Amino acid sequence: MYRWMKESEKSKMENRKIQERLAALRSKMNDYGIDYYMMPTSDFHNSEYAADFFKVREYFSNFTGSNGTLVVSRDWAGMWTDGRYFIQAEREMEGTGVTLYRMMDEGVPTINEYLQQNMQDGQCLGFDGRVISAEIGEELEDDLADKKITFRFDRDLAQEVWTDRPALPCHEIYVLTDELCGKSFAQKLSDVRVRMKEYRTKAYLLCKLDDIMWLTNLRGNDVECNPVALCYAFITMDAFYLFVQQAEVTEAVRSYCEKSGIVLKNYEEIIPFLQNHKYDGKTLYDVRNVNYTTYRALKDTAEGQGTTIRNEKDPTAMMKAVKNETELKNIHEVYLRDSAALCRFIYWLKTNAGKIPMTEYSAAMYLDELRSKLPGYIELSFPTISAYGANAAMMHYEATKDVYSEVKPEGMLLVDSGGTYMGGTTDVTRTIVLGRISDDIRRHFTAVAVGMLRLAGCNFLYGCYGRNLDIMARGPVWEMNMDYKCGTGHGIGYMLNVHEGPQNIRWAMRPGLEDAVLTPGMIVSDEPGVYVEGSHGIRTENILEVAAGEKNGDGQFLHFNQLTYAPIDLEAIDKKYMQPGDVEALNAYHEQVYQKVAPLIEEQEIRAWLREQTRAI
Amino acid sequence: MYRWMKESEKSKMENRKIQERLAALRSKMNDYGIDYYMMPTSDFHNSEYAADFFKVREYFSNFTGSNGTLVVSRDWAGMWTDGRYFIQAEREMEGTGVTLYRMMDEGVPTINEYLQQNMQDGQCLGFDGRVISAEIGEELEDDLADKKITFRFDRDLAQEVWTDRPALPCHEIYVLTDELCGKSFAQKLSDVRVRMKEYRTKAYLLCKLDDIMWLTNLRGNDVECNPVALCYAFITMDAFYLFVQQAEVTEAVRSYCEKSGIVLKNYEEIIPFLQNHKYDGKTLYDVRNVNYTTYRALKDTAEGQGTTIRNEKDPTAMMKAVKNETELKNIHEVYLRDSAALCRFIYWLKTNAGKIPMTEYSAAMYLDELRSKLPGYIELSFPTISAYGANAAMMHYEATKDVYSEVKPEGMLLVDSGGTYMGGTTDVTRTIVLGRISDDIRRHFTAVAVGMLRLAGCNFLYGCYGRNLDIMARGPVWEMNMDYKCGTGHGIGYMLNVHEGPQNIRWAMRPGLEDAVLTPGMIVSDEPGVYVEGSHGIRTENILEVAAGEKNGDGQFLHFNQLTYAPIDLEAIDKKYMQPGDVEALNAYHEQVYQKVAPLIEEQEIRAWLREQTRAI
Repeated sequence: MYRWMKESEKSKMENRKIQERLAALRSKMNDYGIDYYMMPTSDFHNSEYAADFFKVREYFSNFTGSNGTLVVSRDWAGMWTDGRYFIQAEREMEGTGVTLYRMMDEGVPTINEYLQQNMQDGQCLGFDGRVISAEIGEELEDDLADKKITFRFDRDLAQEVWTDRPALPCHEIYVLTDELCGKSFAQKLSDVRVRMKEYRTKAYLLCKLDDIMWLTNLRGNDVECNPVALCYAFITMDAFYLFVQQAEVTEAVRSYCEKSGIVLKNYEEIIPFLQNHKYDGKTLYDVRNVNYTTYRALKDTAEGQGTTIRNEKDPTAMMKAVKNETELKNIHEVYLRDSAALCRFIYWLKTNAGKIPMTEYSAAMYLDELRSKLPGYIELSFPTISAYGANAAMMHYEATKDVYSEVKPEGMLLVDSGGTYMGGTTDVTRTIVLGRISDDIRRHFTAVAVGMLRLAGCNFLYGCYGRNLDIMARGPVWEMNMDYKCGTGHGIGYMLNVHEGPQNIRWAMRPGLEDAVLTPGMIVSDEPGVYVEGSHGIRTENILEVAAGEKNGDGQFLHFNQLTYAPIDLEAIDKKYMQPGDVEALNAYHEQVYQKVAPLIEEQEIRAWLREQTRAI
Repeated sequence: MYRWMKESEKSKMENRKIQERLAALRSKMNDYGIDYYMMPTSDFHNSEYAADFFKVREYFSNFTGSNGTLVVSRDWAGMWTDGRYFIQAEREMEGTGVTLYRMMDEGVPTINEYLQQNMQDGQCLGFDGRVISAEIGEELEDDLADKKITFRFDRDLAQEVWTDRPALPCHEIYVLTDELCGKSFAQKLSDVRVRMKEYRTKAYLLCKLDDIMWLTNLRGNDVECNPVALCYAFITMDAFYLFVQQAEVTEAVRSYCEKSGIVLKNYEEIIPFLQNHKYDGKTLYDVRNVNYTTYRALKDTAEGQGTTIRNEKDPTAMMKAVKNETELKNIHEVYLRDSAALCRFIYWLKTNAGKIPMTEYSAAMYLDELRSKLPGYIELSFPTISAYGANAAMMHYEATKDVYSEVKPEGMLLVDSGGTYMGGTTDVTRTIVLGRISDDIRRHFTAVAVGMLRLAGCNFLYGCYGRNLDIMARGPVWEMNMDYKCGTGHGIGYMLNVHEGPQNIRWAMRPGLEDAVLTPGMIVSDEPGVYVEGSHGIRTENILEVAAGEKNGDGQFLHFNQLTYAPIDLEAIDKKYMQPGDVEALNAYHEQVYQKVAPLIEEQEIRAWLREQTRAI
């Protein structure tokens, strides 16, 4: 209650501030003849986590959710966000004068529809073209063509209003050895050029940060939890240009680049470079990953010179997704150590809950600390989710230093966490029983475990997409007339982003959603769940490697290998909800957990505990 | 051996005949300035079964397979067919001088590639444009544009050479009552016009025979096993034109058409009609279902008048696929009677095999006879497949009066069959044990039964396509590192074609393959199998109705209702290959079979037998 009052006061105080900021923005809009100004939630590369520098929409509206677009006209401002954030946005924007537009609600226009209906013929729409993808920019062009709207996308008005704006992230880049990567930059570049030739292109503009990191065997630290540097790459048949902030370039990086034939250019030079380059053929790009400003610089110049551009999915995505032997070997080792750390955490949690003071946040801190001591630790692969009781039903819940629930010796704690290490990026979820649970919870927990194990255990033909397999994990949840409102699985990078495409395990296909045939060497998560609002949330997540099995006249059979080895809490498993085959699979998995993890644990009492946790049922 | 010799003699005798026919064709090609003449396997509407009138390719090559395209130049002739027919085509075309092109074999050009490589600039390609789809015609246009090839598609040269050609099929049309159809022509037409408006079209050219039958509540008899008449429909906002052979129009049909506002035109009038029609807006058509001649008449005239055409999937396909309440009620009754007939057949087969003379063909005849006595029987929905022992491993095997195997009291007989009745079209497969079988067969048979029952028993969300569910049926086969090289299921018409789209149950998606969200009221087959070349073939096929279940915050749940009730042979089931849940599903299904079918069987001994066949295991 106390905290609520404080927040509400803070909100009132800040609302005047927001109004002042919007007034300053409108004055700038007036200076540049901009009638509507749009601020989405993105950095220049559509990264999953935008740094503080990019929090323009938050600065002008006070709304801090992970998805939202603010549009401002001279006498109106509107915020578009999705169902996860309706309540939060309303509360945070109270008194700012910003109208909330509830996306997907009946009768609520999309941004483009709103602009079509409200902009007058010949007016000007402004936005920073670097934070809007070429795809969205093209849609705006199409949708507003009838009204002859002009675009002003070369101005970042926030830069002129936001005086104490945080700096653009700028951290040192580091070089990975070829031994660690399993393939040199030269070899990867040669593969990329083969694809460029197949597409009959002479140049290739690559803007996706993790793809550039993968290709160059470099890593950075400019995006939270993603070991990537802000950069662009431009590839021709005989040159490779890398655009990065010069302050990020260490001596080691400079020397590596010289040796490797990587021409270093300043990050900001990308636009003039594209405008001055002599195009001697078609240029490859991926409309989903190039921002609008960069896209226009490329397109307008290339077409002005009489050449064309070709939109294709970045070929690097598939190359990066299929891990090589070195990567796989390292990933297996890293997951084993990470699993052992998680086992220690579960032991600590189950042993201490109700005995020592413990909150969602302090539990997360304890786990993060265990990971940070592992060899080769770089950073968390995403902010640890530690959600107690009903909090676990909120899929985007994040306990913080200030807002958290106490962990009591009843119900369950859901912990979704992972780390990035020299040798791999991990991701794992366990839901851990701390005391009394209902039979409903047991039924739900068992269905989730059965689903996870059925997907992990299935045998399938090469040619399958995730949508062919999703029902293996989701089926047991559907059998209860329940669903989880997300995919079952995503790809994971190698010392890179924890969410990586193009493969996934989903059932519903949305237009434009990327997808790929499951291929040996890919890794995917397997994370079914049950979420009951106001009551409980369960998720069990293992990471799987796609592996080749028998090849015969019917085709190449594939299966999954486990990467994750941590006990699934038997206190919440009820055999009456399982088929004998599921029980066998659980027992076999648990035996593997013990055999693989016990050797990494010295303490006799934890080993004994692990033996008990992984007993056959 | 005797039969082989006779065939080989016949073949030698006929080869001269083929050469003479090809010479006559070449002479006509010369008359019309045609350099290459192409003859595919199709009627004017791309029906599944082409009548004798359309067997032009057979006439000029002697090759009788269900798929093949013959191309003839002045000094060469080539036949393209697929792997199913390589051996047969070689044998049948011996001595004809026609070269076999094995489709999909390495290094073998496609027809279009062959023409690109061998036709000279400005030469003329001839074909009867009525037996080639607009889609294929457009591809030819694209592929041969560089060589400035002219097309002559208005001549059916076969008509001028084939003197004793069978007549175009021409059988009387009949009218179904609105009571039997559940929806009147007027109501269906009104639905179609709504879709025409949504597509902003003023006219609609519909060429798919079963769609026209569905829409008009008429039926015909011009295509084997498909109760359809050869026809075209042209729909405007205030008129409906039906093009049929006038000899097919009975007094009842004429009176029904007059009453319903259907303007009858002669079948051959479609081209002049399209060429003389005044188009007052866009015309809807489906490039997959309109033949090239008709397409060009529409396109050239409409565009000549300054209007355009719009290619969309025929909207009638989805309307026809989702059965209405009347149709579903009738379908359930028809399937029950058809199931009872199948039960009688299985009883007869298992009781008499080895005791009376029996062949694959005579067994099929016995079953066909049982069906023909059922109320409302119209015809078989496809030629009965009756395949004994290793023959069942050949998916396209068909025993005939002359070529068949003897049925012995060992191994199994696979019988895939169905009928069209007033009230529905059926399709069902059972593989029936006649004596000793191996443990391998038991393992395969059990996996197939388990797969069929798992798909039939699954619960899923609205939004699923067949590809999301296929693994439920196929998974148990994949678990054995085996596959069946076909889809798991297809849609089925209502007193119409046994193969109907757009829905299906498949895992692999080929470009252009039609697909649809599974929707309550659709019916689909569920027919996993195991086929071991030279040894045995197993298929168990039930037909399922998509039905609505619980609707809650997670969405609309769906499940399947069984339509087929016939025992799955317990002699080939081994519980050791099943989970208890599968055993329960089998027992529950068998109990339903007995409860529903026994009341339709008077004979005490057959009922007792059925009780035993459907016992719980």
